[in-house]
Amino acid sequence: MASELLEPATIDLAFDPGSVGIVETRTAVLFDPPRPLRTDGQAELGPITVAYETYGELSPERDNAVFLCHALTGDAHAAGLHAGNSRKPGWWEGFVGPGKGIDTDRYFVICANVLGGCQGTTGPCSINPTTLRRFALDFPVTTVGDIVTVHAELVRYLGVEKLLSVVGGSLGGMQVLEWAARFPQQIASAVVIASAANLSAQGIAFNTVGRRAILADPRYRGGQYYDADEGPRFGLALARMLAHITYLSEDSIEKKFGRRLQHSDRLGYDLMRETEFQIESYLHYQGKRFVERFDANSYLYLSKAMDYFNLADSYGSIAAALGRTDARFLVVSYTSDWLFPTSQSKQIVRALVESGRHVSFFDFDSPYGHDSFLIDEELPRLASVVRPFLEQTLACVRG
Amino acid sequence: MASELLEPATIDLAFDPGSVGIVETRTAVLFDPPRPLRTDGQAELGPITVAYETYGELSPERDNAVFLCHALTGDAHAAGLHAGNSRKPGWWEGFVGPGKGIDTDRYFVICANVLGGCQGTTGPCSINPTTLRRFALDFPVTTVGDIVTVHAELVRYLGVEKLLSVVGGSLGGMQVLEWAARFPQQIASAVVIASAANLSAQGIAFNTVGRRAILADPRYRGGQYYDADEGPRFGLALARMLAHITYLSEDSIEKKFGRRLQHSDRLGYDLMRETEFQIESYLHYQGKRFVERFDANSYLYLSKAMDYFNLADSYGSIAAALGRTDARFLVVSYTSDWLFPTSQSKQIVRALVESGRHVSFFDFDSPYGHDSFLIDEELPRLASVVRPFLEQTLACVRG
Repeated sequence: MASELLEPATIDLAFDPGSVGIVETRTAVLFDPPRPLRTDGQAELGPITVAYETYGELSPERDNAVFLCHALTGDAHAAGLHAGNSRKPGWWEGFVGPGKGIDTDRYFVICANVLGGCQGTTGPCSINPTTLRRFALDFPVTTVGDIVTVHAELVRYLGVEKLLSVVGGSLGGMQVLEWAARFPQQIASAVVIASAANLSAQGIAFNTVGRRAILADPRYRGGQYYDADEGPRFGLALARMLAHITYLSEDSIEKKFGRRLQHSDRLGYDLMRETEFQIESYLHYQGKRFVERFDANSYLYLSKAMDYFNLADSYGSIAAALGRTDARFLVVSYTSDWLFPTSQSKQIVRALVESGRHVSFFDFDSPYGHDSFLIDEELPRLASVVRPFLEQTLACVRG
Repeated sequence: MASELLEPATIDLAFDPGSVGIVETRTAVLFDPPRPLRTDGQAELGPITVAYETYGELSPERDNAVFLCHALTGDAHAAGLHAGNSRKPGWWEGFVGPGKGIDTDRYFVICANVLGGCQGTTGPCSINPTTLRRFALDFPVTTVGDIVTVHAELVRYLGVEKLLSVVGGSLGGMQVLEWAARFPQQIASAVVIASAANLSAQGIAFNTVGRRAILADPRYRGGQYYDADEGPRFGLALARMLAHITYLSEDSIEKKFGRRLQHSDRLGYDLMRETEFQIESYLHYQGKRFVERFDANSYLYLSKAMDYFNLADSYGSIAAALGRTDARFLVVSYTSDWLFPTSQSKQIVRALVESGRHVSFFDFDSPYGHDSFLIDEELPRLASVVRPFLEQTLACVRG
């Protein structure tokens, strides 16, 4: 029986009072011609399908909506379970739900897949209405700004004029910053977690190696692999393995895996045994699993959007960008995050102080590296600052 | 004229009083059957050709020999220039020569390519005397211990019973530690730079991704690519690009490249432009150049030797390993080195103190990351501790 394959924790979620329960991904079609999206790269794109989920109820005043921005490989499914066979819990199940960090008893929560993604929102694997073939590399290079513009339209479509808050980590945090700069009147607060006002040169370096892995895979076929038996799974898995190392701290890898061997207590002296150490086995597994759920072209486009993100460049300075909004800010970093180090969060905080904005800043002493904001053990601490921040924001809004 | 293509600095080296001038790589054939090398993995290998260079003169007492252990992709050519067309200076030209950090006016310096390498010493691209074809994957998996065993034999072959010092950085430093444990009577001192008593789990993680890149390249052909038109150059270049990131500090990448673009002052919005940012262009160049000089199979074998290195595992504890020798130790680390962090050097120092050995330790505040020991700007500082250390050792020996 298929259900026996599910872990008990997963099955129980549907009836867990701490979970939003069974949820559904819906879609909205926006930017219909003759009003397509004009991207930052001056391409025209439309119609654009946006996949989204909502949890909780919009208040009669329409003032309790919280928008969640997902990270590089996330999707609209942030909380709850899907009905049917795919009962995978949302990516922020531990943080979003009744009584949780983002309390769905109090807030109307929206999460949507990003433009350029592959989980329901228009991206390179979608059908190009002009050619009736998949976009592949005909998809325009889109930016964090383009992603946010599409999501802002979705929020309006859902009848929300001003968000109580926009919340996100990593690439999601970049989106939050762009929300503040691009739609300053549309948000009352912003929560920026493990993020930065621009990707570091080291971050660009890792991304370029990941993209190279995909592009050099002969199965990539210039991006037109959709009708082939096999896509660039080696390249995509490699990109994921590499990225995964950067999401963990050195300490957490050392503690979790160290130099332990996977299948034996002796070295094998066999070069072809690629998963001899546990850390090797773990990374290979991560790569393999990722390929099953993610599109290689989306990976290229979204990592490029990350590389391009540069708040100072787009608006003159970080302070000029963030000074456009009256929103209250909460900035969170993690001490062991070396991909988006604390120093980059401090840069955001300084810019907010400089432009006279309200900002709370927490640098949590976590061992888990960049992934901390997704790790169950770290969520209570994150909740302890996000909950009161949202409450205070609601109090401010309701005056 | 070909000489016009050489940089002036390169041409002048041959006549530079600070350089050892024109040098030659020689070879020795060791471990001739019936006395082959028995590797740590219990394979038999022999004869083994060892490529080496020497600089300076061996003293009549034969007490002034210094052995240099090169890092992952180094070779026997540490100093001076080769005659003929390939006038490339040695990899430690700034540190080894008359009056330099390792003073060839005072010391007889030996440097040899490692077992499993591809620069003259027997490795996977050498001809297997049994099959008369290249070894490829028939080459046995060899360890840092095997490398050192071959080099110890070379040193004896050169008429040196006891080395004044054995010196190396990174994988070279691992060899130095293994020298101390395996041939405790054959060295009077040891200089361990930017190294560790074992590779960290994070280091293994990066290595496994690099190896995956090579193995997944269809041109790898199960290691039998030598007779093909093209080897796994994409995979090997990718492995190098990735490794190169780990050799630099985040700060040094930020300062040297930042987010500067390579060819334009505007973003190109073109996914196929792989070298848009300067850091991308730099890494692609490094990858491309590396492929011209290095063998993919050697990369697999040597990175595996690094993964396997574990002094504590081989000898019970680091203290037990290093306590076998009476050699004096100098340990050097660099603050911005995150691949072989200072904490790992301190572990070596603690073990030496624990076993009552003489040790000097310097943690240099350098911005250049793991590569610091190869960077010209850092060499005077390194020389300022290595020179007196070698002098004192010589004084002790001649005591």
